[in-house]
Amino acid sequence: MALYELYYWPMLPGRGEVLRMMLEDAGVDYRDVAREEGIEAVVKARQGGLGGVVPFAPPVLRHGELVLSQSSVIARYLCEPCGLAPRSEPGKLLADQHFLGWADLVGEVHDTHHPISVGLRYEEQREAAKQRTDRFLDGRLAQWLAHFEDIISDAGGVHVGPDITYVDLQARFVLRGIAYAFPKAFDQLRAKIPSLLALADRVEARPRLAAYLASSRALPFNEHGIFRHYPELEG
Amino acid sequence: MALYELYYWPMLPGRGEVLRMMLEDAGVDYRDVAREEGIEAVVKARQGGLGGVVPFAPPVLRHGELVLSQSSVIARYLCEPCGLAPRSEPGKLLADQHFLGWADLVGEVHDTHHPISVGLRYEEQREAAKQRTDRFLDGRLAQWLAHFEDIISDAGGVHVGPDITYVDLQARFVLRGIAYAFPKAFDQLRAKIPSLLALADRVEARPRLAAYLASSRALPFNEHGIFRHYPELEG
Repeated sequence: MALYELYYWPMLPGRGEVLRMMLEDAGVDYRDVAREEGIEAVVKARQGGLGGVVPFAPPVLRHGELVLSQSSVIARYLCEPCGLAPRSEPGKLLADQHFLGWADLVGEVHDTHHPISVGLRYEEQREAAKQRTDRFLDGRLAQWLAHFEDIISDAGGVHVGPDITYVDLQARFVLRGIAYAFPKAFDQLRAKIPSLLALADRVEARPRLAAYLASSRALPFNEHGIFRHYPELEG
Repeated sequence: MALYELYYWPMLPGRGEVLRMMLEDAGVDYRDVAREEGIEAVVKARQGGLGGVVPFAPPVLRHGELVLSQSSVIARYLCEPCGLAPRSEPGKLLADQHFLGWADLVGEVHDTHHPISVGLRYEEQREAAKQRTDRFLDGRLAQWLAHFEDIISDAGGVHVGPDITYVDLQARFVLRGIAYAFPKAFDQLRAKIPSLLALADRVEARPRLAAYLASSRALPFNEHGIFRHYPELEG
């Protein structure tokens, strides 16, 4: 059995993607189980088939007898063995805070195409989705990105200096996702977030991560995940 | 200066309420700054007036030179000094996981009355709010509560045994909030969540917490917070 087993949707990069990135960046022994065995592996995990506490939703990590869910908890758990932890205790708290900020932003992006219910298809909530997207792109997205731009400008180009940490990997993923989902709006914001864009490039240049991103293991953004490109929403 | 300074909206029990409950339960030296000085104290904190990293949103905790935001990070930081931490390392991870589950549920409740934007008033998004609430009360709420009921049934009446921890305080708050916001729907679910209801009662019977809840320091639920009772949404 691999040291770490990750259970996440095998057809999309979503809340589990930062965990894939961390494990790939570290080059540790892990298995992306549903990519090998199919989506049934995720269903099994959600039904408690891994033992331990039954998770509400993926991603789920199994490490020995430990079965964890919630991406921020798993990321925090993995950051030390992956060599992506901040050095100081206050730094660790701040990284967690920033990670949860990015997770809040991810939730807001998700709800642009699913404002009414996760139990309905996008096509069934398109009208509300357009309203929500308009509001999100009219100020809110810029507010979030300005917040993070200030943080990493102040901290020397990363969220919690001096080194790259797991929250920087998360930022890279979310930025690329937003650029995919809302290319017009994102293009208009680029000039305001030079530090964030430089950080995303720097993260992608890390050798093992670059190899992952160039491989078939890295899934492209698509309309099954959180970051969906529906031109009519941005239009 | 008090040992801990909490900055949160002074007119509502919301994401900061679990922190008030933890500090009151522990009887530690703290100041709920905006309850004394007014909402300007929260505005100042959000503008970076406390030093450190500028928070995106309240609650904010200041402890010496440390300035933290994100309620789950602050709760995790405070749980040791408040005597509300799980004993084992895996227990601490699970408590954090469960806390974030409750926080996800809180977010879903919030969006029942604000499905389009936090920048609009409820009255401006009432139609979508009705749609979202219908979906939330038709299955999703029951799914969340069944998840937590299973967890605490399995763990002996609390989330992470053997003792009461901070996540149990959070559960008590969210349960009371849901009962306030959706009394009809909640009444129909009561029979399915005996362990959760017993836990909420047990939390409220803790002497210092009982004194807090009976005091004017504890704010009643109202239509400024997360848990709002709009009869037309439930009808």
